[in-house]
This record gives sequence, C-alpha cells and structure tokens, in this order.
Amino acid sequence: MRQRRPLKLFAGNGNPALAQRIASALGVPLGDLMVRRFSDGEVRVECHETVRGCDVFVIQSLCPPIHDNLMELLILLDALRRASAARLTVVIPYYAYARQEKKSTPRDPVPAKVVADMLTTAGAHRVITMDLHAEAITGFFHIPVDDLSALSLLAHHFIRLRGENLVVVAPDAGAVRLARAVAQKLAAPLAVAYARSGRTENPAHIRFAGDVEGLKPLIIEDMIVTGKRVESCVKALIRQGCIPEIRVAATHGVLAGDALLRVMQPEVVELALTDTIPQHHQHPRVTVIPTAHLFAEAIRRVYHDRTLDTIVLPHTVGD
Amino acid sequence: MRQRRPLKLFAGNGNPALAQRIASALGVPLGDLMVRRFSDGEVRVECHETVRGCDVFVIQSLCPPIHDNLMELLILLDALRRASAARLTVVIPYYAYARQEKKSTPRDPVPAKVVADMLTTAGAHRVITMDLHAEAITGFFHIPVDDLSALSLLAHHFIRLRGENLVVVAPDAGAVRLARAVAQKLAAPLAVAYARSGRTENPAHIRFAGDVEGLKPLIIEDMIVTGKRVESCVKALIRQGCIPEIRVAATHGVLAGDALLRVMQPEVVELALTDTIPQHHQHPRVTVIPTAHLFAEAIRRVYHDRTLDTIVLPHTVGD
Amino acid sequence: MRQRRPLKLFAGNGNPALAQRIASALGVPLGDLMVRRFSDGEVRVECHETVRGCDVFVIQSLCPPIHDNLMELLILLDALRRASAARLTVVIPYYAYARQEKKSTPRDPVPAKVVADMLTTAGAHRVITMDLHAEAITGFFHIPVDDLSALSLLAHHFIRLRGENLVVVAPDAGAVRLARAVAQKLAAPLAVAYARSGRTENPAHIRFAGDVEGLKPLIIEDMIVTGKRVESCVKALIRQGCIPEIRVAATHGVLAGDALLRVMQPEVVELALTDTIPQHHQHPRVTVIPTAHLFAEAIRRVYHDRTLDTIVLPHTVGD
Amino acid sequence: MRQRRPLKLFAGNGNPALAQRIASALGVPLGDLMVRRFSDGEVRVECHETVRGCDVFVIQSLCPPIHDNLMELLILLDALRRASAARLTVVIPYYAYARQEKKSTPRDPVPAKVVADMLTTAGAHRVITMDLHAEAITGFFHIPVDDLSALSLLAHHFIRLRGENLVVVAPDAGAVRLARAVAQKLAAPLAVAYARSGRTENPAHIRFAGDVEGLKPLIIEDMIVTGKRVESCVKALIRQGCIPEIRVAATHGVLAGDALLRVMQPEVVELALTDTIPQHHQHPRVTVIPTAHLFAEAIRRVYHDRTLDTIVLPHTVGD
Amino acid sequence: MRQRRPLKLFAGNGNPALAQRIASALGVPLGDLMVRRFSDGEVRVECHETVRGCDVFVIQSLCPPIHDNLMELLILLDALRRASAARLTVVIPYYAYARQEKKSTPRDPVPAKVVADMLTTAGAHRVITMDLHAEAITGFFHIPVDDLSALSLLAHHFIRLRGENLVVVAPDAGAVRLARAVAQKLAAPLAVAYARSGRTENPAHIRFAGDVEGLKPLIIEDMIVTGKRVESCVKALIRQGCIPEIRVAATHGVLAGDALLRVMQPEVVELALTDTIPQHHQHPRVTVIPTAHLFAEAIRRVYHDRTLDTIVLPHTVGD
Amino acid sequence: MRQRRPLKLFAGNGNPALAQRIASALGVPLGDLMVRRFSDGEVRVECHETVRGCDVFVIQSLCPPIHDNLMELLILLDALRRASAARLTVVIPYYAYARQEKKSTPRDPVPAKVVADMLTTAGAHRVITMDLHAEAITGFFHIPVDDLSALSLLAHHFIRLRGENLVVVAPDAGAVRLARAVAQKLAAPLAVAYARSGRTENPAHIRFAGDVEGLKPLIIEDMIVTGKRVESCVKALIRQGCIPEIRVAATHGVLAGDALLRVMQPEVVELALTDTIPQHHQHPRVTVIPTAHLFAEAIRRVYHDRTLDTIVLPHTVGD
Repeated sequence: MRQRRPLKLFAGNGNPALAQRIASALGVPLGDLMVRRFSDGEVRVECHETVRGCDVFVIQSLCPPIHDNLMELLILLDALRRASAARLTVVIPYYAYARQEKKSTPRDPVPAKVVADMLTTAGAHRVITMDLHAEAITGFFHIPVDDLSALSLLAHHFIRLRGENLVVVAPDAGAVRLARAVAQKLAAPLAVAYARSGRTENPAHIRFAGDVEGLKPLIIEDMIVTGKRVESCVKALIRQGCIPEIRVAATHGVLAGDALLRVMQPEVVELALTDTIPQHHQHPRVTVIPTAHLFAEAIRRVYHDRTLDTIVLPHTVGD
Repeated sequence: MRQRRPLKLFAGNGNPALAQRIASALGVPLGDLMVRRFSDGEVRVECHETVRGCDVFVIQSLCPPIHDNLMELLILLDALRRASAARLTVVIPYYAYARQEKKSTPRDPVPAKVVADMLTTAGAHRVITMDLHAEAITGFFHIPVDDLSALSLLAHHFIRLRGENLVVVAPDAGAVRLARAVAQKLAAPLAVAYARSGRTENPAHIRFAGDVEGLKPLIIEDMIVTGKRVESCVKALIRQGCIPEIRVAATHGVLAGDALLRVMQPEVVELALTDTIPQHHQHPRVTVIPTAHLFAEAIRRVYHDRTLDTIVLPHTVGD
Repeated sequence: MRQRRPLKLFAGNGNPALAQRIASALGVPLGDLMVRRFSDGEVRVECHETVRGCDVFVIQSLCPPIHDNLMELLILLDALRRASAARLTVVIPYYAYARQEKKSTPRDPVPAKVVADMLTTAGAHRVITMDLHAEAITGFFHIPVDDLSALSLLAHHFIRLRGENLVVVAPDAGAVRLARAVAQKLAAPLAVAYARSGRTENPAHIRFAGDVEGLKPLIIEDMIVTGKRVESCVKALIRQGCIPEIRVAATHGVLAGDALLRVMQPEVVELALTDTIPQHHQHPRVTVIPTAHLFAEAIRRVYHDRTLDTIVLPHTVGD
Repeated sequence: MRQRRPLKLFAGNGNPALAQRIASALGVPLGDLMVRRFSDGEVRVECHETVRGCDVFVIQSLCPPIHDNLMELLILLDALRRASAARLTVVIPYYAYARQEKKSTPRDPVPAKVVADMLTTAGAHRVITMDLHAEAITGFFHIPVDDLSALSLLAHHFIRLRGENLVVVAPDAGAVRLARAVAQKLAAPLAVAYARSGRTENPAHIRFAGDVEGLKPLIIEDMIVTGKRVESCVKALIRQGCIPEIRVAATHGVLAGDALLRVMQPEVVELALTDTIPQHHQHPRVTVIPTAHLFAEAIRRVYHDRTLDTIVLPHTVGD
Repeated sequence: MRQRRPLKLFAGNGNPALAQRIASALGVPLGDLMVRRFSDGEVRVECHETVRGCDVFVIQSLCPPIHDNLMELLILLDALRRASAARLTVVIPYYAYARQEKKSTPRDPVPAKVVADMLTTAGAHRVITMDLHAEAITGFFHIPVDDLSALSLLAHHFIRLRGENLVVVAPDAGAVRLARAVAQKLAAPLAVAYARSGRTENPAHIRFAGDVEGLKPLIIEDMIVTGKRVESCVKALIRQGCIPEIRVAATHGVLAGDALLRVMQPEVVELALTDTIPQHHQHPRVTVIPTAHLFAEAIRRVYHDRTLDTIVLPHTVGD
Repeated sequence: MRQRRPLKLFAGNGNPALAQRIASALGVPLGDLMVRRFSDGEVRVECHETVRGCDVFVIQSLCPPIHDNLMELLILLDALRRASAARLTVVIPYYAYARQEKKSTPRDPVPAKVVADMLTTAGAHRVITMDLHAEAITGFFHIPVDDLSALSLLAHHFIRLRGENLVVVAPDAGAVRLARAVAQKLAAPLAVAYARSGRTENPAHIRFAGDVEGLKPLIIEDMIVTGKRVESCVKALIRQGCIPEIRVAATHGVLAGDALLRVMQPEVVELALTDTIPQHHQHPRVTVIPTAHLFAEAIRRVYHDRTLDTIVLPHTVGD
C-alpha cells in the first residue's frame, strides 16, 4: 500500500472535550499546541511540535464565543501553513453564520461567505463539517467540503421507539430533508409544520401537512438557537391532539439565553442533541449523543483517500 | 450634478428582441456590435464603436442554446474589458443553471458557481438578473448582484381578478416566497402544494396546505422548464375540488420539449410568462408580460448610482 | 519504486470513441460517469465512483458543438475538484478557439485566453493537447501545458512515398513549422505558398517559395476548417505544373460545412486526418490516423512523472 | 472643481463615541446602520440607506473585545461592497495584533498579516490607521495604508512644559522613533531605556542611554497594554535620580487588567492617552487627548484626493 | 464636459530624453521624482509630489540595462500605488523579452509572460507600448494593452521616395505585417525573404518571394538586435541584382554589440530607427525618427477616454 | 519509510561557487542547466534535464548585479514550473532589498514586498534564506519561509577567544538580536552603540550602552554594505578606550565600493564574513566562513519534512 504523510491532529478551544474524544477514537494524540489569550484579548498560538510535510487536521467548533473561536482557528491555520503543513483540513463540527447565507434584502451582507473566504485565505485546503444549515454554502468554497450528517446517530438513538406510534415532525420547511430521512429510518410517518404568512412563532397559526393526532411526535431540527420555533411547534402539536409525549432532536444545540427553558415544555420527555457544541448544563431530560467516532471516521477516510459516501447520508436519500 | 461617464448598451444573441425593448425604454441605442458564428461554431465578436472609459451594460439572457449564449457573453466581456470599458455590468434576464446551486450528493458539481466564476473571471463588475431560483447564488459572487423580481408585473397583470375568489398556489416549497408576495398584492389566500415523500409528480400524492376547494387557483412559479410539476399541480387542484378555471404564471418560461402541452390542460385558462426568454410560439392562451422597462429602470438607477430598493420587491415582503 | 496515487480516466461526450481507444491503449477503464443534458440544454454530471486522492485525467475534445463540449468539461472539472481529486489533468485533443489568440484590432477579444482562464478557474492542474494552432497559447496558462504533435504519425503514414518526387507544401506561413518537420522526416524538399496582399484564397495570386513543378505535392496543415485555403493551394499547385497527384494531411479535421467537398478536388488522391475530431463521413479517399496511443503514452508519462520530450516533436526540430 | 461621489460615514460598535466625534468634526452624519448581536453571538448588520456609488468610510477601532469588533467590521464591509459602494476606506484608530507582525520562532503565525488579509478579502480599498506598532505592516497590504501619528497631539499637549528640565524617555528601542520626534518638538533631550539581556521588567537591570538625573521625565509609548514596561521604567528612572515628577504619554491606551494601577505610581503626575480606545475609567490623573479632528482631516483629504503629508508626521522627522 | 482627475507623468531612467520629449509634446511637466541607485545596486525611489487620486502615466522603456530598468519600473509602480494613484498606466516604448513569448521546447520558460505578470502584480492598470514583436503578448495581460505602431512614422519618413522604384522587403515572415503596411502606404511592391531550412543567416540560402531585381530595397523590421538577419538580407538582395541603394528601417534599434557595423554595409544608404531606445552613436547614415508626439497623443486619448483606433495602424490594414 | 519524489538542485549565476559547495555537501549534482545572456542583456534559460514530478531546489543569491540575478531566478522558476516540477523551493542565501521593507515616508515603495510578490507569482512554493535584515519580511509571503542564521557559524569561529576579555558590540539597535545571541554563546558581555539624534556616522556622537573600556570588541552585523557604520563604530570604540584589537563579523558581506577600505582600519585585526555573497578580494585580514553545509542541511530537512528548529537559532534565544 501507498505510504502516507504523517497524520497530525490539533484542536482550538472551541470544543476541547469533543476534540479529545475524536483523538481517542482515532488513536492519534492531540498535537502539542498552546492557544492562549493575552490580557487584551489577542490570541497567541504556539505550536510545540513539527508539522512539516504532515497531513494536518484542525478541530474547532464555531460555537460561542463564535468570533474568538473563529480567530483562534484562523491564526492557528496561519501558523500551520507557515510551518509547512502539507495539507490542512479544518474540522468544524458546528459552522456558525450558516443561517446568514444569502442576500435577501438589498444591502444584506453574506456572512457565511465571509467566513468561507476567511478560512480559504488563511490556508485551509478542505473542510469537514456537519449538517450545514444551507447546502449552498458548500458552493461558497472553491476547496472541497464534506458535509457529514448526524442523521444516523439520531435515528439510531430513537430506534427503540420504532413501532410506537411515532410521527416525525419537521418544524419548518428547512428541516424537512433531515426529518424525512429520520422518518424513513424509523419507518414512521412525516408531518411538516406550516404557518400561514410565515408566522411560525404563534402556535395558533401553525398547521401540519401530515397527521399528528394520536401520535407521539419526534421533532427534528438541524439546530436550536433560541428554541422559539420548537416551543411553538410543541404547543401546536398539543393543540392538534398529539399524544403528550413529545421528543425533540437536533444536531446542533446552540441553546442561547433561555432556549433550554423554552424547549423543555412539560410534555417534552426528551431533548436529544449531539455534542458538536458543548452542553455544560446537566438537564435530566437532555441526552447528548456523541459524534466523535463519526468525525474520526471521516478524518480517517480523508487521510486514506477513501470515499465518504456512506457517512454523508441525508443527501443520498430519496427526492 | 456630477458628470457621468457615457452609458453604452450592448446585446448578444440571447434575446435580441428584449434587448431592443430595453434599449428603447432607456432611450439609448444598442451599441454597434457584430457577434457571429464561424462555420465550426466558434463565436467571433467585433465591436465597431469605442467603449473606452464608458459605463457599459451588456444584455444577454442565458436561454437555450444556453452554452452558445454564455460563451458569446464571456467573449464579449473579454473584448469590452480589453477595450477599456470603465465598468461592465451584465444584465442576465434569465440565469441558467440556477437550479444546480448546491452539492447535494458527494460528487456533485455546482454549475451555478461555475457560471458565476466564469463571469467574474471574464471581467464583469456587477450583475443584474431576475428572480434567481436560489438566492444563495448572490453569495457565489464577490461582485454586487441585483436580483430584480417580476412580482410587481405578475401581480399587476392579475389585479383585475382581485375579489374573484382567487387562491394563489405555490406548487412546491421553492415557489412560496414569490407566491406569498403575489397573494399579498392580490389580497388572496395562499395554498402550498406538498407531497408525501417528495413525489410531486403524482397528483394523487399532492396535498395542499391552505384551502383550494371552491376557489380559482393562480399557480405561481419562478420558472417552468418541463412543465411536469405544474401539470401535476393542476390535476391535484382539480381533484381537490377547485373551480376549473386555473391560471398559471411564471417569471421564466423555458418551456423545453413538450412543456407547453403539459401545462396547457383544458382547465388552464391562461399562462402568463415574462419575456426573459423569447416566446416564439403563438399559443392563444399564453400572455407574455414585458419586462423591458423594469430592466431599463434598473440600468438607469445603477448608472446614476441610485438605490434599487423599490424594484427588488419580493425580498422586502413579510417573512 | 515510489508508490503512486491511483490513476482514473474520465471522458466527456466530445469524442467518446477516441477516449475509449485511449483507455484501451492505457489498459485503464473509463470511469463510471454520466454526463447528460436536460431538455433545456443544461448539462447534468453524475460521477458514480470515488476520485478522492486520485490522479485524474479527463479527456474532452473541443470539437463541435464546441460550447456544449466546453461546458461539459468545466462542470466535470468542478465535480472532480469538489470530490477531492488529487490532481486534474485535462486532455484536449483539439483545442478550439486557438486561432483567436491575439488582439489584432483595437477592440478584439482573445477567446483562446478566455478558454484558458475558464479551465484554470474550474480547477485544471495541467493540460495535454496536440498541435496547438499558436504556441503562445501555452503562455496563456499558469499551469503546465504539454503540446503533443501528430507529426510522427503523419510522417510515418507517408513514409512509403519516400523517394517518390514528393514536395512538402505549407499552404501558408503558419503551417511552415509542421511542414518543415515532415519534409525533414521524408527527406523531401519544402515549398511555402505565398500570396501578394494576403489574398490566399485566389489561386491566381498564390506563389510558391520552393519548386513544385514536376513534383507530387503533400500539403501539410495543422487544421482544416472551411477547406478554402487548401482548395486554393491545390488549384495553384496545378497551375504551377505539379504532378496532379496531390495529398493533403492535417492534424485536426474540423471540416465544417462543405469543407470536405472543397478539399477533395479530383487531383487530391488522399486526405489524411487524425481522429482528434470524430470523422463520421466515410469518404473513400480519406484516411483517419489514430492518435490514441500517443495520448495514452503522454498520460502514462505524466502519471509516472517521466519526460515527454520524445513525443513533443516538431519543436525540437531545426530552426 | 471636479464633482465628487457622495461621502458616507459608517461606524461599528468599536468606539462609537470617537466615531461620533469624527462625524461631528467632518460635519457629516453617521450613516443609518444597525449592527446588533443575536443571542448566540452572531452579528447582524442592516444598512438602512443607500451607498450605491458612494465614497464610503467605515470607522471601527479594534479595541477589546477585539474579535467581535473585527467581525463586525468584516461583515459590514461585505454588506457595503455588495451594496455597490464605489470605494471603501476603513478607518482603524487602533489596529490590534500589530505587535504580532513577524514569525520569530519556527512555527509562529503572523496574526497582523491575517488581519490584513481579512480586510482586503472583505473588500477594503484603503486603510487609515494611527501609530502602527510596526511599520512593516503597511507592507502587508497591497492596498494603500495611511499611518497617521498622534505625535503632534501629544507634543502640543506638553508644550506648556517646554523649558522645564524635561527629558523625553523611550522605555525601549521600539518607542524611540515616536519619542525622538516628541523630544524634538519640545526641544528636550532624549533618553532611551536599555536592559542587559532584554529583561526590561526588572528596574535594577535598566540603564538609560542619555542623562535622566535631575530631570523631569516624559515617557513616550505607542501603546500601553499591561503597563509592566512603563512601571519598570518609572522605577528605574527614580533609581537613577530623576526628579520625581514623571509624565507618561501613549497613543493607544489598551490598559488591560491592572495596567492602570501599574502605571499610576505615586511619582506619575500625569498619564496622557488619546481616545483611539475608549477610556471608561475616570482616573483624576489621566488626560484623554481627542484625535477626532485628525481622523476627520485625513478622511477629508482622502475624499478630496489631497496629500496627507503634513498629518503623517513622525516618519518625516530626522533619522 | 466631464471633469477629470489630474494627469501626472513620471519617468524612470530607461529613456529620459524620450520621456522629456513626450512631456513637452503633452505640455505636462515630468513629476518630481528621484530614482537613484545605492552602491550595491539597489534602486531607491523617492516621489516628491502627491499623486493621490491622479491619473498617472509612467514612462519607462525596457532598453538595456533591461533588468535595472524593469526593477525601477516595478518599484516605482509600487510606490505610486501605495501613494494612492487612481489609475496607473505604464508606457513602455520598447517591451523587452517580446521575442521569448512561447514555450517552444519542453522546458522553456515564457519570459514575456513573466514580465507581464510582474507589471500586473506591481499594480499597473493598463499598458501602452509599440510594435510588440508578438501580438499574442496582448493576451498575456488581463489589463488593457494598447499596441501602437511606428508604421505611419516610418512610411511618412520615406514618402519622398514614392515612385522611385522602391521594393519593400520583409527579412523574414515575422516582419511581413509591418512591411506590407509600409508597402501599401508607399504604393510599392513587397518582397519577403525566405530561407530553405530556416537558415536566414547565410545569404546564399535566401530567396525572395516577390521581385527585387532592378529595384531599390527598403528593408522593414520591428526590431534590430544583433543585425545578423539584416546583414544577410542586404547581401542576398545584392546577389539577386537589386539596385545597390538599400535602406533599412526598424521601430526598435536595440543594436547590441557590433550590430551597427553589421547593418551598415556600404550599399546601405540609410538606417532609420525610432527613438524608443536611446541612440547614443552619431552615425552619419542613421536617422532617428521621433515618436514622442505619438506617445503623447496616445496618453492624451487614454486620459480623455477617446479611442486610439487611428493611431494603432498596422492591425487595421488588409490581411 | 515513505518514498519521496526525486530531489533536484539547480543554480543561477548569483553565487555559483556556493551553489557548488551546497551540492557537494548534499551529495547531489547541480542540474544540467544553461543560463546565458543575449547580447542585449536578455536572459535565456535552457534546462537540459527533466524535472517532472521532482522536488526542486533553486539556489540563487541576490548579490550584485542584483536585478540580473533576480530576473534569472524568476525566469528559471517559470521554466521549472512549466516543466512540471512538483515543488519549487528557492534558496536565497542573501535576500536583497531587505532593508527597504516598510513605508516610512508617505510615498515610499516597499521593494522587499515587490521581490516577495515576484517570487510567489513566478511559482515559488517556499523560501529558504539567511539572517533576513527584517523579520517582518517573512510575513510578506503567503508561502513558508525558513530564515536560517549564521549565528552558530560566527560564534563557532570566535570560540577560541572565549575568556579573552571580549565584548560583543552591536553597532546599532537592528543588530542587537544577533549580537546578543553571539554574546551568550561566547559568554561575553554585550554593548550596544547608540547615537544621539540618530547620527550614527559621527564617532563623536556615539555612546555605548554597556562597558567597552579595556575590552577587546567583537562587532556583529547582519550585513555590511558601505561599511560606514562599522567604521564609525570602530573609531568610537577606540575613543572610548577599548583595547585596539577589534574584530568584525557579519553574515552578508556586500562590501559595495570602498566598503572594505572603510572597515579595515588598522585596529581591525579580523573581518569575518560568510560566503552568502562571493568574496573575490583576497584581503589577508578577511576570513570567509563557509555556509554550504548549513544550507545543505536545511535542504535535506525540507526534503525529508523534518523540522528546522535546531538550525534556525537566534530566534530561539532569550527575549
């Protein structure tokens, strides 16, 4: 077999626990790196081992504080590039700004493109991420982007409920792709929330395409930020006569401010999130699903130039 | 007031009639240009008047034959750039490949990005287009893009039907934005077609979020290519008990192959299309809505550095 | 020996028979790829096998329909780049627009540069082509370009005529380089057609530098498009008293419109063309010389990082 | 006189008070802009007035929180560029990361270059800044950079002390350029602190090139971050027998953590800082010197294409 | 009329006399600039007047010492760009390396492209040059290039000989374009030198397409470097029985080493050169034709955005 | 172990003896290359062996004639890139223009950046150089730069003087970093020359921070160009009572004009220089220290992707 360049793994401070789990799953130690802040907020990166000619993977989730984590990543890339890394793959479990990906009013910026340009300018050769809010972001990059999906993890987590009158619910049109794939895996029907005039936050205006009455809803989202949309969806489901045993699952649990409170209505028996964003709370009804082995497998395949087809799932389903 | 560089207008062979109408609306003659084909298919561009230091607008719709029109445009841009045009704005009434704007399976290309890169590399400084199928395409460009909308034209065309039990129908999720804006203008309710499992082509699987029974449907699309989706939608509407007096409107009437036949079911009393793509057929139930004065106004404003806010409509509505 | 990345070979619809012959000569199957057209003319590319980390060669001749073949190539490159091909070499047996390579009047475009920029922007890392009409095009690219020559194939084909009173004729100054190399190989004298005032199409104005009287002419061209220049040259040769047994050879047989009729004057006993462009006619006096093993050898050498010196011939001769 | 494009002024949240003062000094209102944060930390920019064809100046100091202010600036630039601003000048009173401008150990990043690349990629056409810690940063940019100096403001502030036995002190080699210029303006001698082995933080190791005994020191710095170097310098001056009436002046008062405490030794009778960074404390011995009219004058001259020679001072002095 | 940015003119040390003549012809003084050399050969540029917002033209001929003149030009461009010139046009009367414009053997560089890339990278926005040896070089640039011609000057110089049995001679195929245009202007016949096997240096091998016997030859070249080709052509003309009253004209008189001796055979009654390269010798039979007013006119037209059609002549003739 | 691409070594005419010594130290022959000048000064490069797929190192010192050597290097890079070298590392023992690395007056160019841009544009993938005058130049490049140091060589050369009352002297602030490192290696004290008002050329104005009286000075410089600064330093040292047995050492001995005369005062017993610049004089008191094995080791490590930490010394010391 072909000899390969050494693989090196580095991590910023975005989600160190996940980075550590990925390293363990890969059986490769995290590189000896110091990323610290000066008292004025500037980042100082010191890399204590050689990366010359190596195939380097940098893990940094763009979770809050988003901008600090982003700058850490960019400065780290600059250091590794100047230190002659042969290839630089950035692993971004959660890609911030993915919802701001288009110019929808005349003087809108496109921050998701700004982030893409910054990563490329700083020297990234490829990107591995997960459940990007908008797939068109892959087109923002000139370099290859692998958009993994937490679908199989979420579906596997709920597989025990198969046959229990589940209905998979997409709280709005954007979540349909992921929800439909979960539904298929669980052999459950699908319902899509829809609101007259786009007012998805008032439960009274929400309708469902697909029956929900008498069923146990499993709401699927790609990300939960404020929790307002899930809250409305939960309330609307109850109004429409669902069994009051509701589950919610999302890839990215940003959970800013009171989001957790909003989501955890009494009827919500479980909220399942992955660990792309650190979940520091210890809420008894929240389950955190580890993603490390999925990222580790992606890194292993990229390193060995093997296809990622089988771990990039929702895109290959139906439609 | 500030003196401006001379405005010059050129057109390729994509949609010469529309270009001529835009020129008339602007009161500026089309530039003296010869774009011809050699017998082997190569394009030869000859520009017979100076553009040195001018503010140049090039009108070329990317209607079929798409690739010939695209290459004409690129070679024309190259000629004008080398001839020292001060600014090059491309006016692309119909932007082809807009539906292929994301990598949805692992080895997908992103042709909409390829086209964007080609235009930028050839020297375009800005783009004016209309009802882009996917707004994220604006983010593919580093240069400014103005995405006009035919909304006001379509709404104005049907204003006479206001109060006549209309229901505005979006045949799928992608058309909702435009349909909702039309509905608002006509003070009509909205219905969105939805199909279990994404099979939008079988009328039996199509449901509507929003009532259609006893109402006169007005189906709104951004573009009609094969007409299959509209055909299914028409049939489903009839199955659901709508009044059999259906109208269809779309910004871009590509109408490839048998599309026109498919759309023009007996219950369809009118198909309204704009002229972003030449409509050479003379179907009695087809209405062609001119867009020239809208493009002319956009050109005028860009030339005079005035805001286009008021002519970039659907984005500014609701949601 | 050094282990290499896997070699993969793909082909567009430009000249599938040649691609197949190259694949056979290499002993490498063509990759599993679907390139089809939608009814509106858009190209849709689907690549059914992994190219991650591979050394990929894409064969696409830019023969008519030139623009469709070019867009296929660009979209295919985009797909392969995003699919993480390690290196992308485009094999372009016939490079269209090579005659439009300079700005010769004030507002001329340089389409050969537009094509070069498009290939580079789409992600090509190197180019293999054959008998480029203008060598300066190699300078248009920042990436390496290997310009092979059909010279040895053409010379070998006529080697049987050595010693038979041949005179090798260049129909104008541009063809001299190739013609002189053939003459040298066949140990035959050279004659160059020359016309007062550049009117090469009127046989009465054509003179020859070098004797042609009483000799059997072999006219050498890099490409035949309309055939007008060859036709005039044939007529002039007859007027100047050559033996009426004329042969014509060219690398690229574009043969647009009536070109074949024009070239095949009664005195022309043979027209030899290579297969860089598909020759669908079955003219009894036309010989098609296969180039597949030359391209296969070039691909093999590029893949193995061996020099192409010995297969890039005309440049190394004389002058 | 030549007619100019309209001037527009915008400001981020970095130092709004300074931006307001610059606007007042210019007599141009700040543009109608909303820059807010979502609950997850993402920035959302909304620009409520047209900038099409305008000469736009964006004021944003990169004071702490550095990264939030930087991202605001980049997203704002992206918005203004897409909104067709004719020229985008960024006014960065304090340029963060200027001390990290070289690779001094083998795997060092160069963050000052990362910031420069980000600004250029986001669309800046020119930069106006003040007393850059390292002049080579101007070379990091391909676009023009105007590096103003607070020298004349600082010198003017202390002009009343002329003739009072002052000695201008540079606490290390980096500050010499600015200190020497101040000394010249005040007709005072210069002393430069120097430490054996580079240990500038231990007062016992500090020597002075130039006499300080019996003189009133005026310490000049370009920026004070932790205050440690100034603290040591103050102590060393006292050890060397200066008059215990010490003044400290710096362009940029970052004053992170306990810096203010460290600097304000009992013998320090005054600390003079400019307002490039907001000074929210109300220390009785701190004087804040306004810079607004200097930036306003620079903007005015850039807008009118007049030279900035006379307001870019220290560079033009001596040496 | 539209108000324009101020025009500024600068010159390097390449051909200061020509620069001065262009300045006089334009009525614009040369900018206050100091370009000197350090003792180690480094160039030091100091620009003593503002160029902010100006339309700047930099005159620098790339005559020997080529590399010193080129570096002067690049450093000067860098200075002017950083000093905020609004537009930078380089006027290069003689463009060196124009004969090395293609890769003709496998490992050839393309120095003419290297020079083009350097000019663009250093900040040039457009180029004005004269009688480029190879027109394809215009395609090497992405920026506009105006290739003037000395044709009208040369033709005008010899107009007095009209009707005197002249024959215009192109010493090889490369000079045909220019020679034919001169012939047309002088209403004289054309002859083209041609050598079997490309050995143009041995007079015995040279033939002429077109009669020369009993005529007075006027040899036309774009540039004379070593003079060997002209020398052979002169000898061959005499062998073929021309009237021994030969004239030679060339745009660029590089005249390296013994070139002048070689050209000035006894039968050569006149050598006419332009002043794109300084002619320091005082040979009695050499005429220097001034080009300043042609460059001045080109600068004037570029500055005023007027077409250069009528002063870019040879391209527009016949062929 | 991993198989590597073949290593190839080429050299221009900058410092052929050093190149030969590096080749010998590496045990790799210099590649078969011809770099010659045409009579008009143009460089012609011919590469007579394949570099396809090789890891190529090009050695070229930018010593005088600086511009000729620079152009040679750029054209050589262009040739090697077009010839498909897999990686191009330029080894520049002496990097000219390093002292012109910042814009210090308003219209200054930044020639060190111009050189960096030229190298990158011509195709360099990485740079190896030595004792760059200004470290910020590493930040000018986007590609990796390894800045070696002659420190260990210089220190080793003087190690015999350890314990002999040496004082290491930095003639100005810029040389402190190197001088301090040498002092540490020799366990000697350090003194730094300092001049009131920056007039370092008048010995009477020079003071020393650190004692020099009764000590034997060893002056350390990164480069000696005119020798004026060293001359003044020597004279000042004598005035201050040093032992009149002075040694001078510098990495780069440019020694333009009378520099050698100026430096070699009677009290100077030795001048030690490395061979980054050829030392053609045979001065009895000048020692030339070879650097070849240091460059050879750097090339070996880059080739084998091993860290250069241990041979990039001064940066890792103190401070």
